Amino acid sequence: MGTINVTIWNEFKHERSQSPAGDLIRRHYPEGLHRTLAQNLAADDLVIRAVSLDEPEQGLPEEILQSTDVLVWWGHCAHAEVNDELVDRIQKRVLAGMGLVVLHSGHLSKIFRRLMGTVCRLRWREVGEKERLWVVSPSHPIAQGIPETFVIPHHEMYGEPFDIPQDGKIVFMSWYEGGNVFRSGVAFERDRGKIFYFSPGHETFPIYHDPVIIKIIGNAIRWAAPQEVVLDRITPQPQALEKILSENPLACLDTSSLHKANTEEKKA
Amino acid sequence: MGTINVTIWNEFKHERSQSPAGDLIRRHYPEGLHRTLAQNLAADDLVIRAVSLDEPEQGLPEEILQSTDVLVWWGHCAHAEVNDELVDRIQKRVLAGMGLVVLHSGHLSKIFRRLMGTVCRLRWREVGEKERLWVVSPSHPIAQGIPETFVIPHHEMYGEPFDIPQDGKIVFMSWYEGGNVFRSGVAFERDRGKIFYFSPGHETFPIYHDPVIIKIIGNAIRWAAPQEVVLDRITPQPQALEKILSENPLACLDTSSLHKANTEEKKA
Amino acid sequence: MGTINVTIWNEFKHERSQSPAGDLIRRHYPEGLHRTLAQNLAADDLVIRAVSLDEPEQGLPEEILQSTDVLVWWGHCAHAEVNDELVDRIQKRVLAGMGLVVLHSGHLSKIFRRLMGTVCRLRWREVGEKERLWVVSPSHPIAQGIPETFVIPHHEMYGEPFDIPQDGKIVFMSWYEGGNVFRSGVAFERDRGKIFYFSPGHETFPIYHDPVIIKIIGNAIRWAAPQEVVLDRITPQPQALEKILSENPLACLDTSSLHKANTEEKKA
Amino acid sequence: MGTINVTIWNEFKHERSQSPAGDLIRRHYPEGLHRTLAQNLAADDLVIRAVSLDEPEQGLPEEILQSTDVLVWWGHCAHAEVNDELVDRIQKRVLAGMGLVVLHSGHLSKIFRRLMGTVCRLRWREVGEKERLWVVSPSHPIAQGIPETFVIPHHEMYGEPFDIPQDGKIVFMSWYEGGNVFRSGVAFERDRGKIFYFSPGHETFPIYHDPVIIKIIGNAIRWAAPQEVVLDRITPQPQALEKILSENPLACLDTSSLHKANTEEKKA
Repeated sequence: MGTINVTIWNEFKHERSQSPAGDLIRRHYPEGLHRTLAQNLAADDLVIRAVSLDEPEQGLPEEILQSTDVLVWWGHCAHAEVNDELVDRIQKRVLAGMGLVVLHSGHLSKIFRRLMGTVCRLRWREVGEKERLWVVSPSHPIAQGIPETFVIPHHEMYGEPFDIPQDGKIVFMSWYEGGNVFRSGVAFERDRGKIFYFSPGHETFPIYHDPVIIKIIGNAIRWAAPQEVVLDRITPQPQALEKILSENPLACLDTSSLHKANTEEKKA
Repeated sequence: MGTINVTIWNEFKHERSQSPAGDLIRRHYPEGLHRTLAQNLAADDLVIRAVSLDEPEQGLPEEILQSTDVLVWWGHCAHAEVNDELVDRIQKRVLAGMGLVVLHSGHLSKIFRRLMGTVCRLRWREVGEKERLWVVSPSHPIAQGIPETFVIPHHEMYGEPFDIPQDGKIVFMSWYEGGNVFRSGVAFERDRGKIFYFSPGHETFPIYHDPVIIKIIGNAIRWAAPQEVVLDRITPQPQALEKILSENPLACLDTSSLHKANTEEKKA
Repeated sequence: MGTINVTIWNEFKHERSQSPAGDLIRRHYPEGLHRTLAQNLAADDLVIRAVSLDEPEQGLPEEILQSTDVLVWWGHCAHAEVNDELVDRIQKRVLAGMGLVVLHSGHLSKIFRRLMGTVCRLRWREVGEKERLWVVSPSHPIAQGIPETFVIPHHEMYGEPFDIPQDGKIVFMSWYEGGNVFRSGVAFERDRGKIFYFSPGHETFPIYHDPVIIKIIGNAIRWAAPQEVVLDRITPQPQALEKILSENPLACLDTSSLHKANTEEKKA
Repeated sequence: MGTINVTIWNEFKHERSQSPAGDLIRRHYPEGLHRTLAQNLAADDLVIRAVSLDEPEQGLPEEILQSTDVLVWWGHCAHAEVNDELVDRIQKRVLAGMGLVVLHSGHLSKIFRRLMGTVCRLRWREVGEKERLWVVSPSHPIAQGIPETFVIPHHEMYGEPFDIPQDGKIVFMSWYEGGNVFRSGVAFERDRGKIFYFSPGHETFPIYHDPVIIKIIGNAIRWAAPQEVVLDRITPQPQALEKILSENPLACLDTSSLHKANTEEKKA
């Protein structure tokens, strides 16, 4: 089994804020969330890079994206700054097979909303209450080795209703002290790509130092890693394979000029 | 039961082309596909408007969109001309409950791809072969009154694989003389909106004069029409409903400036 | 719109127990849970019968079953007493279009497990703790007119993991004071029938006197009621519809005697 | 990676029939379908047993079932002869994680119907026509190494509508010369078990000698093989994990005698 190339993307704003909140966040993530995640996820089968929004091409030039097997995404206050062109490129690569692990407030990131087709709205409350997670799909690869229930002592509340598509497989559900519930770990497939949304990770708490959380993210990376796809012949305009008796050439006058844009798009 | 406000949108290009193909298409749809559909779908419970890309605000100014219960979409060679801003507005309205019926080559329209999150690629061949459709979900509202199988004598082939999300309910599947198969009628739900994709309707054949096809589109409109939703209280940042003992105010320092963008987005 | 014939089935054991628990339960349901439900659900569009396990043919002779549009099921300690033959008949009728609303401990009933194909195991605790329900699918017909969240002051806890199939649409999710979460209202479709599982209703609490709970059950009945299905031609062994050139009669020697059992089953 | 214990179960009736059909079938499968499958599937990572209905305990005594990782099932005319008690045991083992690959006419087997909850009815025609299969989910593990489309020269037709639950992932779809279409390869998950239905394999044709078919069945076996599930703590009646303030002991009078049957069932 080969290694998996992981790129952890972070908007990297909160950690550099000159404010009491920034001071607190830096205590947990002195060099940024992405670098802490990279350190804590380190394993023989993972080759991990940590990149951020302020880097050239917003941290994801084409050579990095094309050599990424699984992209981990953390963003919160700067979703709007991410270029639409970059979102296009990431979406294309996910649909071609790259895994995507979207963390916490990434539910509102452009790339997650693009792949879901919905707003990905939820309810939220920030008082630092207790969250308790439950494994809902015990046999899912992402749940292996995880206790049936475990606690995040203090977290931002994310609650239902959460307007994600219905084909997400629910791996974790959360209970909040303040009375809310949430589908906190949900696995999707879109074309050849796998996507996992996992809500833990508010920046003011040291959540990415918790070994259970890290194990889940590691499981998600390994689950989302692209399998080698042997079949890959896309012949968008194939010849007929069976004998056609009812062919109607009259009806198929040359519409090639009309169809030009469409054909090009189909080729893409 | 009230009436349903239907808006039929057509890019309206092929029907005005000065070419042999255009001449043929005009034989079927002298005033445009959208107007033929409007005439053939006419019923007491439907109030139908037909609009097109060349009209002001691409046919869908906000007052029309906001008064539309179900939008029917036909586009082919001019997908790229539709403004992204219009796509944003349509998506928002679908997610708020407006029905959307996407016809034929609309699988590549910006709005359908936006709602699916995928490329919506398929295989195709244009030789005018026979297509045979089958009802796969006999109890689905869109299949009511439709023969278990029926034929389109000559059509463009659309074939699998079709990279749509897995939660689409398959209402119709198609057989093509040339050896292909296709999920030709698929029903989705996204947030409060219902979406139906239906592949028949290539412009060089008089398909929207076929009473079975028209009945299916009419059924789809009635299925996709928004129910009156009584519950509609979105309180994105609710107070705690249960007593919180583990509150951690230290961890919740004022991050309001950091969160501003996010909050605004969540409100939207 | 016509009326819906509803049959409420109750095992009717707890309410007749000579024990302190029985005394308590009789305070809430003096004539049985089924009769209370019938009274509280009474509406112009519903024709309601209440039946129980101790009646002839366990309360569901064929003439009652065949004239039932929606069956409501409450059972707890006597699941094993229900005849397999009755379960067969109910399953057949659900698959043909009858609605089924399974309440509370009916998750372990033979009929629910038969239709799900799984054990329908869950976690449980009976200390009378608070349950809080959330609407997860605000636009679902069963959620109409229901508050976004509401409370059952004292209830038995039912918790995840709950091994139901993944295609259930989650309408409600529950939070429990003791730290558990649960998919407490889930809607399924199986062939032509609709099935709704709703967990509230432990017998020692007066839950079926709560107007919100009653409104949900009423909504579920109306949602599950069979639509008039116009298409109903099952021709299991149809003639070929398209010309077959590759017919291979040699390979199709008369296997009729071998296939007899199979054919009979297929006809059924 | 360890080996997978595979048991191939065959009713083994057609192959021993004294009739012209039997003679033909014996030409393809002289020692029975199950033994041919075992030979053709032979691989280093598979330990394969072939068993049949006429063996002690219908071929699946508990020691064989408990040591089976993936069960392959072929049955046709003798579904009714399979003991319900055996079906119970197989179902239990599938839900606990054993893979199940159901072939051809096994769609009407007791075990497949039990796991689906539906009749699994389809349309059929036996004239030996051409079937063409398409890969619908190119990235699914079962589709790896399989051509995008391939042909079975002569086969029994199985056609839509097929009343399986909606959460089956469609891996293959079939086109039939006579005009029908079918979801011919569908993957399900039920509790911890994976199930794959694959329609090719009518006994009068040498289909299980086709290397593409064999590769698909081999892929399905490897896909369905149980993962080692690390989490396996079922504590059906857990203590409260969070502080309960609203406990209501009055309402929880001793109902233990009433609940005895239920509790035992829940333990099971």
